[in-house]
Amino acid sequence: MFIYYRAMRVKDEIKQEAIIQATVDLVNEIGFVSSSVAKIAKRANVSPATIYIYYQNKEDLLVSTYMQIKTCLGQALMDHFDPSFPVRDALMNAGINLFNYISKHADMFYFTEQFANSPYNDLVDKTEIEQVFQPLFDMLKRGIKEKIIKDVPVELLHSHLYYPIFNLANPRLNPNFKASPKDIELAMSMAWDAIKL
Amino acid sequence: MFIYYRAMRVKDEIKQEAIIQATVDLVNEIGFVSSSVAKIAKRANVSPATIYIYYQNKEDLLVSTYMQIKTCLGQALMDHFDPSFPVRDALMNAGINLFNYISKHADMFYFTEQFANSPYNDLVDKTEIEQVFQPLFDMLKRGIKEKIIKDVPVELLHSHLYYPIFNLANPRLNPNFKASPKDIELAMSMAWDAIKL
Repeated sequence: MFIYYRAMRVKDEIKQEAIIQATVDLVNEIGFVSSSVAKIAKRANVSPATIYIYYQNKEDLLVSTYMQIKTCLGQALMDHFDPSFPVRDALMNAGINLFNYISKHADMFYFTEQFANSPYNDLVDKTEIEQVFQPLFDMLKRGIKEKIIKDVPVELLHSHLYYPIFNLANPRLNPNFKASPKDIELAMSMAWDAIKL
Repeated sequence: MFIYYRAMRVKDEIKQEAIIQATVDLVNEIGFVSSSVAKIAKRANVSPATIYIYYQNKEDLLVSTYMQIKTCLGQALMDHFDPSFPVRDALMNAGINLFNYISKHADMFYFTEQFANSPYNDLVDKTEIEQVFQPLFDMLKRGIKEKIIKDVPVELLHSHLYYPIFNLANPRLNPNFKASPKDIELAMSMAWDAIKL
């Protein structure tokens, strides 16, 4: 019985992953408006009814997809993150993780960037996303307290730390420049120069 | 005859502006795929035939709209730009101009960000866009030569100078933080810390 239940759960997860991937692929190809639940179901090789088991409607599916990718991004960012690390090491490591995640998941990134600049973004619970990144914000506050980071609004700090990476990792924005691992280390040490006291 | 011609030209420009604005508004509302030439014409209060006078097809209209906004952005960025200015002043001033442009034209910005992360971006002639920003790139090269800016790839420099501003100016990404003019000056002085030698 346990094994049967477990197999069901794994099957469910595979289905959900297929739905998320189909949503990303279809939205990237034909846009948010044309991507209907029926078309996404067809692409994911499931019935529309299956999608409605997990998601209330199309908006719910799109917002959930966005939240799931942002959560994965947050987890990737925080890979090997240790609150006891020196502030500089922890923040720079997160930037390198960010670059690696975007480079490997360009399709997910195109989806989230389009989503974040669409009206659907207004439906997102921002506090839920902020929770994913909370350990990083705590690290920034620790740096300010320890007087090694500038005492400026945290939005300025994270903009300087991670937005240059968003640009450098996006192949569509820089078709003629492929940042090497050394470039990304350099970029993160420049980001540190921006925020350090 | 001259006056007649001039009046025609002004009328043409007004029509073209209406078409661009209608394209931006409609794409922001219903996305790239659903925005047909017929719907854009209706929104702009012109006939579809009028659009086909200026643009070959929908792709041409979308790409032209993107190029036109990017050109306006470049011109706004370079407002009061003087190649004889000190490097730091010139680069920081451009960042403040960028913030002001995006803050005033959020609709245009949402369009370009969605466009840049869509497959349509592959249709854009990147060298034409780069020309708009050439005086800035020249300024960066001057700074490297004068040994006041780090000798790193120019993509790293401009990512640190202007991408934090893209984030700070986007109200959808920071619904709970409205950067003040003082914050933007601060952000640009942090950007300078990132790139200075």
